[in-house]
Amino acid sequence: MRIAVLGTGEVGRRLASKLVSVGHEVTLGSRSADHTGAKEWAAEHHSAHGTFAAAAAGAELVVNATGGLVSLAALEAAGAENLDGKVLVDVSNPLDFSQGVPPTVAQPEGASLAEQIQRAFPGARVVKTLNTMTNTVMVEPSRVPGDHVVFVCGDDAEAKEVVGGLLKSFGWPDERILDLGDLTGARATELVLPLWLRLFGTFGTMDFNFAVPRA
Amino acid sequence: MRIAVLGTGEVGRRLASKLVSVGHEVTLGSRSADHTGAKEWAAEHHSAHGTFAAAAAGAELVVNATGGLVSLAALEAAGAENLDGKVLVDVSNPLDFSQGVPPTVAQPEGASLAEQIQRAFPGARVVKTLNTMTNTVMVEPSRVPGDHVVFVCGDDAEAKEVVGGLLKSFGWPDERILDLGDLTGARATELVLPLWLRLFGTFGTMDFNFAVPRA
Repeated sequence: MRIAVLGTGEVGRRLASKLVSVGHEVTLGSRSADHTGAKEWAAEHHSAHGTFAAAAAGAELVVNATGGLVSLAALEAAGAENLDGKVLVDVSNPLDFSQGVPPTVAQPEGASLAEQIQRAFPGARVVKTLNTMTNTVMVEPSRVPGDHVVFVCGDDAEAKEVVGGLLKSFGWPDERILDLGDLTGARATELVLPLWLRLFGTFGTMDFNFAVPRA
Repeated sequence: MRIAVLGTGEVGRRLASKLVSVGHEVTLGSRSADHTGAKEWAAEHHSAHGTFAAAAAGAELVVNATGGLVSLAALEAAGAENLDGKVLVDVSNPLDFSQGVPPTVAQPEGASLAEQIQRAFPGARVVKTLNTMTNTVMVEPSRVPGDHVVFVCGDDAEAKEVVGGLLKSFGWPDERILDLGDLTGARATELVLPLWLRLFGTFGTMDFNFAVPRA
């Protein structure tokens, strides 16, 4: 599949590299066409890079791995016309550090970032996933022992199936991909970030994840 | 130990019954002295009941199991003088259903309910725990398989030790009692409630809990 990964931070590069390694044609999207990190990544992975708009235009599926507080602007730069009809995988978290640490989760009027993105780009098929763990675990779940899970939610069942396929190719077994229903579920998964950060502080490692054993 | 459990809902009664069964002298506290549910519980468990103030006055340790949105008022009714110097175990969640379902977590200016309680009653030694699971699991962790955990946080190390002792008497093994540090950790554990509610909707059972496997 032709995939655009928007965002050249650690999360974006990690996801882009994994997607290349499982056989996809990936373009790493950044704010400017001559972003040094994007160039380096593209050279190393024999892949493409470009502006948000160029990356999204050529893709069948788009991953939003930009910082949560700038995601709407980045997707605006990508262009609604380049997102129309496409699966848009949102892995970002709207963490607001403006009041210091710990950050708050920015959900104006209770709406998750994923829902804000869906509202701003009604033609995109937004699926929220992978935002509740560190990027190394996203693409290599076996780093952490146990039946830990990845949450998925979105309004488009077919889009969730496509994303489920990608997650399986990352190593997530079917029974550990937890479908939380429609996109309002993203409110819940985004609000888990403060606990994730607190656990990181407590454990001193990011190599952990949430499991939800049940009777 | 003489323990007051404030709140006659399912959570309060469940905790009070368990505390009786592990050997404590429990008074169930309610808004009025003649609360029918409290009377019935007391008769059934050969225990006492009384107003929030009467219950707290006679106790060495106080459990806040009132609804999160009325907890500050209930503790005001209990009286600061009856909480002074005592361990105050806060198991409540400030869920606000005024905008419908799903509820939001009421944390004005980012402060958890536990921190608000601590601020309002500086003489109390507030420990937040048990608020991330259903009441049956609180008092019988073996209902759910796996290494699921109970979070604990608070500013007073000795108070957390006392609470750790209670949790152990409920059946929580040491290694599954996760100390998240000071009381600001309650921001994180209270914000997990939307995910808990979503999982309840997804699973159709409350017999689950969070685990945090790590490498």
